[in-house]
Amino acid sequence: MATLKNDTLLKALRREPTPYTPVWLMRQAGRYLPEYNATRARAGSFLALAKTPSLATEVTLQPLARFPLDAAILFSDILTVPDAMGLGLQFAAGEGPRFLRTTADEAAIAALAVPDMAKLAYVFDAVSEIKTALAGSVPLLGFAGSPFTLACYMIEGGGSSDFATVRKMACARPDLLQRIVDVNAEAVAAYLNEQIARGADAVMIFDTWGGMLSTPAYRRFSLAPMRSILAALKPAPDGAPVPTIVFTKGGGQWLDEVAASGASAVGLDWTVDIARARAAVGARVALQGNLDPIVLLTDPDTVDREATAIVRAAGPAPGHIFNLGHGIVPATPPENVAALVAAVHRESAAIRATP
Amino acid sequence: MATLKNDTLLKALRREPTPYTPVWLMRQAGRYLPEYNATRARAGSFLALAKTPSLATEVTLQPLARFPLDAAILFSDILTVPDAMGLGLQFAAGEGPRFLRTTADEAAIAALAVPDMAKLAYVFDAVSEIKTALAGSVPLLGFAGSPFTLACYMIEGGGSSDFATVRKMACARPDLLQRIVDVNAEAVAAYLNEQIARGADAVMIFDTWGGMLSTPAYRRFSLAPMRSILAALKPAPDGAPVPTIVFTKGGGQWLDEVAASGASAVGLDWTVDIARARAAVGARVALQGNLDPIVLLTDPDTVDREATAIVRAAGPAPGHIFNLGHGIVPATPPENVAALVAAVHRESAAIRATP
Repeated sequence: MATLKNDTLLKALRREPTPYTPVWLMRQAGRYLPEYNATRARAGSFLALAKTPSLATEVTLQPLARFPLDAAILFSDILTVPDAMGLGLQFAAGEGPRFLRTTADEAAIAALAVPDMAKLAYVFDAVSEIKTALAGSVPLLGFAGSPFTLACYMIEGGGSSDFATVRKMACARPDLLQRIVDVNAEAVAAYLNEQIARGADAVMIFDTWGGMLSTPAYRRFSLAPMRSILAALKPAPDGAPVPTIVFTKGGGQWLDEVAASGASAVGLDWTVDIARARAAVGARVALQGNLDPIVLLTDPDTVDREATAIVRAAGPAPGHIFNLGHGIVPATPPENVAALVAAVHRESAAIRATP
Repeated sequence: MATLKNDTLLKALRREPTPYTPVWLMRQAGRYLPEYNATRARAGSFLALAKTPSLATEVTLQPLARFPLDAAILFSDILTVPDAMGLGLQFAAGEGPRFLRTTADEAAIAALAVPDMAKLAYVFDAVSEIKTALAGSVPLLGFAGSPFTLACYMIEGGGSSDFATVRKMACARPDLLQRIVDVNAEAVAAYLNEQIARGADAVMIFDTWGGMLSTPAYRRFSLAPMRSILAALKPAPDGAPVPTIVFTKGGGQWLDEVAASGASAVGLDWTVDIARARAAVGARVALQGNLDPIVLLTDPDTVDREATAIVRAAGPAPGHIFNLGHGIVPATPPENVAALVAAVHRESAAIRATP
């Protein structure tokens, strides 16, 4: 495996000094880029794009050709794992994901099983192909949805404004929800381990919906399964430990518990004060975040000012990975992304140079 | 003014001992009650119901006839204040609120002004009429939307999945958002003062959307205007200070700052651990909350168990007002509300009796 030319992301995840703050963006390969839309049109559908390694590789590399980002992230979807469980993932035009079969009654939940990882070969093949294409330029991040977030879509059969069925199950039938997240945790651990075996340099767990739970329910149904995944991850093929990132959107009030999960880094959404977060966790973990993605809908000057404020709030200590507080939105003008990356690199180099 | 027969709410807001924990529920007068739906049908529309004091009085009293709740809350809407500013509030069938005119450009924002309180006479008349009808049985809560939450609807012209225009304005044109919340704060202070003059025993500020902001933006555009309202509130007609409640949904990570706002009580949504919240604020403020309203969609046994857990977590110290973590949902079976109120009263009396 080639030595990385730019290893700032991995160093920051290990809280080692870097000359500037590395930056990548959630959904950096996506609909705000005309070249992404062109590839997607050629693929015919989002799922065809995600399931064709050569096309997934193509779109993964697109933002790196435009912007001096410090990491690539595998182009895929968090719902590939329940899809491999046989739930029938669909994306209708202009709508979110739907499963043909929901996992909401006792029979369906009893029948759930960790899928054969061979069904996810297209993901692992994409990891290999992207890794080769990157040729050691920047690290490659693998990822998966959190067991609880996957459970949300599995139980409701798709997205929801309030996930009421999930929240009801958490209190009325905690045994059923427990079984779903247990199966998911085992599946996600196997899934991330195979991404690592194929060359992912670091992995991230996306917990999009854990923030809607009560604190005891968050601990049991979201944080605990993520901890068990982190504990089950294997080292890289060269024997080195693989850095990990856990991101619970809306989880700012549980920062101390997420920081003790065993992850190398905690993702912060944009509502969290990153200076306060750093003061709270000290040098225990790296922090990733946390610009409001809506800032990228404004103009380059505003983007520069807001990004600068976050770099300064995060401070010069090692262990900050700049990112958004949630995924980039499709209406984002690419020139604002350029302004963002430039501001982060410039400002973070400047504060490190200041004695 | 009659002496209150049941003053547990006011005592709890002042953190004085009570024999049990008082309970009321956000949207306790609402669509889950068949008698509410009957009155609303008679009124012809939600707005006609809210704008007719006799009907608003009728629905305010309905839940108190069914359940031994410890407070009444004025039946009204948070958007009455911007409606009185001339923005033209509408409720289309099956949809949320819409304004005929948005407040998103410089001209509209410059033209904003504190409305003549005479335009809100129907609210104040309802307060008087409810107060008379209650005959001192339980206290009457007045309320208003927070300046920022009102601004959200004014800027977007209605509800929104992401309030992107508001979040853009917060960073690109903070001067414009500042002017809106300044006008709103002055209007809300006048509005709550008139509710107090007409007999409201305590008042609550509902900050439904402050939780979507970055921490600096929350402080500036949501918390600061709420503080200025709290500082402007007058005492009751008898000269006694009027207890206040501030509730920022999604604001759990800012608990210490909200607790220092000058409010008597802080409302907690269901994601917050109330035991930890109590430990964090000590005896500085009362706490209100915080059952997930979705629990009320389950069954009486589950409701009892979950309510009991919150009463125990809140502990026996004075200063807990039991409530939901957000409004009651229309699909709630009324028998689950009965189970909730009974569990709170029973369990809280029991923990106070335990040496």
